[in-house]
Amino acid sequence: NNYAEENDRYHAPDNSTIHELNNIANRIRIKSILSTCESKSGHPTSASSCAEILSVLFFKEMKYKVDVPRDPSSDRFVMSKGHGCPALYAAWVETGHMSMEQLMTLRKFGSVYEGHPTPKIDFIDVATGSLGQGLNLAVGMAYTGKYFDKASYRVFCLMGDGEMAEGAVWEAMAFASYYKLNNTVAIIDVNRLGQSEPTSLGHDTDSYKRRAEAFGWNTIVVDGHSVSDLCKAFHLAKLCTDRPTCIVAKTMKGKNMLGQENLHGFHGKAVAAASKDEILAELEKLVSQSSGIKLVPAKPIDDAPAVNISNITLSSPPNYTKGQKAATRQAYGVALVKLGRNCDRIYSLDGDMKNSTFAQDYKKEFPDRFIECFIAEQNMVGAAIGMATRDRGVVFCSTFAAFLARAYDHIRMGAVSQTNCNFFGSHCGISIGADGPSQMALEDIAMFRAIPGSTVLYPSDIVSMERAVELVANTKGICFIRGTRAATPVVFDNDATFAVGRANVLQQKKGDAVTVIAGGVTLGEALKASTLLEAENISITIIDLFSLKPIDKDTIMSAASATGGRILTVEDHYPEGGLGSAVAEALADETGFKQVQLAVRGMPYSAEPAELLAAFKIDATAIAAAVKKMI
Amino acid sequence: NNYAEENDRYHAPDNSTIHELNNIANRIRIKSILSTCESKSGHPTSASSCAEILSVLFFKEMKYKVDVPRDPSSDRFVMSKGHGCPALYAAWVETGHMSMEQLMTLRKFGSVYEGHPTPKIDFIDVATGSLGQGLNLAVGMAYTGKYFDKASYRVFCLMGDGEMAEGAVWEAMAFASYYKLNNTVAIIDVNRLGQSEPTSLGHDTDSYKRRAEAFGWNTIVVDGHSVSDLCKAFHLAKLCTDRPTCIVAKTMKGKNMLGQENLHGFHGKAVAAASKDEILAELEKLVSQSSGIKLVPAKPIDDAPAVNISNITLSSPPNYTKGQKAATRQAYGVALVKLGRNCDRIYSLDGDMKNSTFAQDYKKEFPDRFIECFIAEQNMVGAAIGMATRDRGVVFCSTFAAFLARAYDHIRMGAVSQTNCNFFGSHCGISIGADGPSQMALEDIAMFRAIPGSTVLYPSDIVSMERAVELVANTKGICFIRGTRAATPVVFDNDATFAVGRANVLQQKKGDAVTVIAGGVTLGEALKASTLLEAENISITIIDLFSLKPIDKDTIMSAASATGGRILTVEDHYPEGGLGSAVAEALADETGFKQVQLAVRGMPYSAEPAELLAAFKIDATAIAAAVKKMI
Repeated sequence: NNYAEENDRYHAPDNSTIHELNNIANRIRIKSILSTCESKSGHPTSASSCAEILSVLFFKEMKYKVDVPRDPSSDRFVMSKGHGCPALYAAWVETGHMSMEQLMTLRKFGSVYEGHPTPKIDFIDVATGSLGQGLNLAVGMAYTGKYFDKASYRVFCLMGDGEMAEGAVWEAMAFASYYKLNNTVAIIDVNRLGQSEPTSLGHDTDSYKRRAEAFGWNTIVVDGHSVSDLCKAFHLAKLCTDRPTCIVAKTMKGKNMLGQENLHGFHGKAVAAASKDEILAELEKLVSQSSGIKLVPAKPIDDAPAVNISNITLSSPPNYTKGQKAATRQAYGVALVKLGRNCDRIYSLDGDMKNSTFAQDYKKEFPDRFIECFIAEQNMVGAAIGMATRDRGVVFCSTFAAFLARAYDHIRMGAVSQTNCNFFGSHCGISIGADGPSQMALEDIAMFRAIPGSTVLYPSDIVSMERAVELVANTKGICFIRGTRAATPVVFDNDATFAVGRANVLQQKKGDAVTVIAGGVTLGEALKASTLLEAENISITIIDLFSLKPIDKDTIMSAASATGGRILTVEDHYPEGGLGSAVAEALADETGFKQVQLAVRGMPYSAEPAELLAAFKIDATAIAAAVKKMI
Repeated sequence: NNYAEENDRYHAPDNSTIHELNNIANRIRIKSILSTCESKSGHPTSASSCAEILSVLFFKEMKYKVDVPRDPSSDRFVMSKGHGCPALYAAWVETGHMSMEQLMTLRKFGSVYEGHPTPKIDFIDVATGSLGQGLNLAVGMAYTGKYFDKASYRVFCLMGDGEMAEGAVWEAMAFASYYKLNNTVAIIDVNRLGQSEPTSLGHDTDSYKRRAEAFGWNTIVVDGHSVSDLCKAFHLAKLCTDRPTCIVAKTMKGKNMLGQENLHGFHGKAVAAASKDEILAELEKLVSQSSGIKLVPAKPIDDAPAVNISNITLSSPPNYTKGQKAATRQAYGVALVKLGRNCDRIYSLDGDMKNSTFAQDYKKEFPDRFIECFIAEQNMVGAAIGMATRDRGVVFCSTFAAFLARAYDHIRMGAVSQTNCNFFGSHCGISIGADGPSQMALEDIAMFRAIPGSTVLYPSDIVSMERAVELVANTKGICFIRGTRAATPVVFDNDATFAVGRANVLQQKKGDAVTVIAGGVTLGEALKASTLLEAENISITIIDLFSLKPIDKDTIMSAASATGGRILTVEDHYPEGGLGSAVAEALADETGFKQVQLAVRGMPYSAEPAELLAAFKIDATAIAAAVKKMI
């Protein structure tokens, strides 16, 4: 076959190239040692094991523009083993894009060259440092390259062997082979040693090979310190057109570092002052002779299209009837489709829940812009963040809100990646009913509110849900929309306007006894409670909080001031960190307010939604009773 | 070899047994249909695909006591595909332990037979329903059986094929082969169909086999509807002494359900009234003939030891000097060892961070009671919950607090499992310094506080850390202890006492201007601020909050009332859901208090700890400035 023939026909790089690639690798080691000695912390031995891999990637294999790191057509590199970043920074010094002075600011106050890579650096697309996430991000970028950009750029991801224990990696492995992402090359730096002991597989490269092959990857085992082996492996990777390629590189931690090579006990430690000169001297010897040639990275083909993702709007306004009942998750699907009609860069990802989240509507109209991620939430989230990098798409990621907890570390890291990825979690709260607590999201608001720079919207009807989807498509940072399984009544006019950071005062009149703040299913309960209370001549102000973060403190304070400072929050969420907590935090430094918090206290169980709302005291009856108790 | 010989020598069950196993399987189907029709929801087709697997397990393979489901020596069963539970409940009806009347309460208010299994049922050890977690739990139970109980019981885990996409499963696969858990049998119910579309591998059982084998498992592919094939496969599993066994069972979703077998579109739906009678009639035909024999489950060997895990105490009290500086994480290791000396059922699990979390101290003294879980936090947490079931051990799980986010869904489900597992998260907050945001836990308090019934402790010095570890060992529910990387001064006497739900008032005097509430590294800053303020004749009350959940509302209110209602909270955590938020929630329904919240606002970065505390305004200077602004 072609593959075998190409293998035979392969021409190895000439001796000068080999010599220079080795020189670059050892200079990467020297620079990694110098920078970590300067910062007095960092991971020089982890940098050292991958020096040849980086040298070959950056000076032989990858096609990119040294001075335009974010160029859309350039090959991408993700350093999943983020702690090895001194080597990556050193490689960019070798290209000339970065100065040695910049490198020496490693880990210092004010420097963008942090302990682990973040997109504050122009050549970093996605943050790494929580191990086992890089390949999730990389396959998202590769999917964009192959299917959306339809461009020739490829995505390289360097992983440590320790992080191969993370399940998220295997989610990405399955995803990449299923979608035939032959533009993806993963390199495993098998340096045998973890932080506190050897990895479970040590130098057993065959086991890594069997695992990667079983997950559908073209797999090649190489000596990771042989630049010629590496060159050939990357060549073979290019020839494989139906699968991604995994290069299993056997390496030594602390390679070429006198007294540290392949030895335990040097993880995450700058070289000691006592041994620094000796180690550097040995490395200097290795790079003393130049071949006389200067390797220059190859340029990419400029074939990635220009993209416009600004000012995204619904193709038509909401079109519902007040009082009509429907689940907000249905409006999620409708809104996605409406955005997709106006923008060809809206992407929807779902984890085999599309008939519950209504992402299926998007798949139906735009099958090429929907990505089924199966039951693998970590990879779904990582891939979504990857797809959203470099502003190449507006990405929506959906599943039951409860299962977004599965990807919380990926979401946390998404904030470090400065992602604009949007999340939709359906089936929140006890109001889902009989499926029971495993399916009920009751900590999702706490989870997403605690992400810096996040936006958390909780629409209570289908009109506001459509607008929420439109809003987050245009909002930077991580956005989360909370969706309800149960049908809720339409309370807003079709031409109602909504804004991030703005609450909606649904009813308010002079003499209102209490300001009731609700969201989602509890808004309908608050409205019913109002009717109950009217019979006793008690009137209440009702606020649909809508934007849980940022929160509309002014509206809350102004409404609550008119109700004697009395506030009742009611939510289908645990009391900690949710809607009521957001209100409490916002008003903590104000005086004159008294807030009673109705929330789900204790572990819920299977029952009918109405039974649960009553049992956990967040229904109309409980609201009415709480109001009466407050006055 | 023995294996091949035994294979040859295997005697198949007699025809009557085969006949009855088939009858039981079809009766399981009938009962699953009846119960889900009654509840009008549930997953009868998912139940149907695994009916033979359950029939063979419960009436041929497993050794257990029908009337003592929690018997310590009995084989264990984990239904990872929790949505298939109507079949499991039906199997228990078949054993006679459960009645048909009980089964017909499925999913109803007040019934323990919920939509997904929980330990409210006496034959359920661990909750499932968030897919891809069962094997994590099972390998923890199997580890306990093999290495701690040294008993003959085995652990069976039934997984769906859809959930094989979850990375957590592959973490468990790697763990089980690494630790040679030959007492573990995983069965994959490969019924081809997910919720919203076919799974990525469909009926490709060979791919599952290759993956399981590559991860080190003895793997057998069978027709999952052939009870004789299943019997033989389980027999072979028993003969494999060096590895766990995975049985890849090719099945049909909706097997034997007229008009639904192997067809998409019937996931999670009770049989429609129109087709119910016809489907049941077909099934009744299949079970019309009895062989005349009655299959009875085999009894186990009573070889699991009795266990006592009550009243666990430190073997010696803390022994430090006031003012001495040390990191609380160091005291975590010390305290674990002290507990281990008094109780042989203390288990420590760590994710290749033991030299940072100081779990290494425990490994050093009790190597047989320490389990290295490598960089696979989901499996570490799941296995820990598995180990803690049925009160067979007191389990501590440690890593960087930031990486516990990786296992948030497992922790969430742990609460549904009613686990008493303890978590220690080191390296919280910006005070870790140069490693940067990927390593900093700044949402961990929000995360753990939102777990129902949880206890969250945040010791500020090494004396209180030792006591915190002792406290959680004796506290039910999920417990989380937050640990600090940086050294903090000893502020408590060695004989100081601590309690869950009790704050420690460190300094308080008449005329104090503000009550400062701190925890961890910010307590030392508060003490320094006090000195700064004294120079300006301002004195402050300082509370070490210690117990973030439950929170000591009385102490806070009483102290704050004496400082004019003025409260300053200061924490190394994001503002949402953390220490300040806990205080705000607690005081929301009180009037007369005004709380200013110092917290980490915005995304942190690499720098020296002191530089970060200053930049994010949670250091002594910021505290002093905030106090002055408040008065």
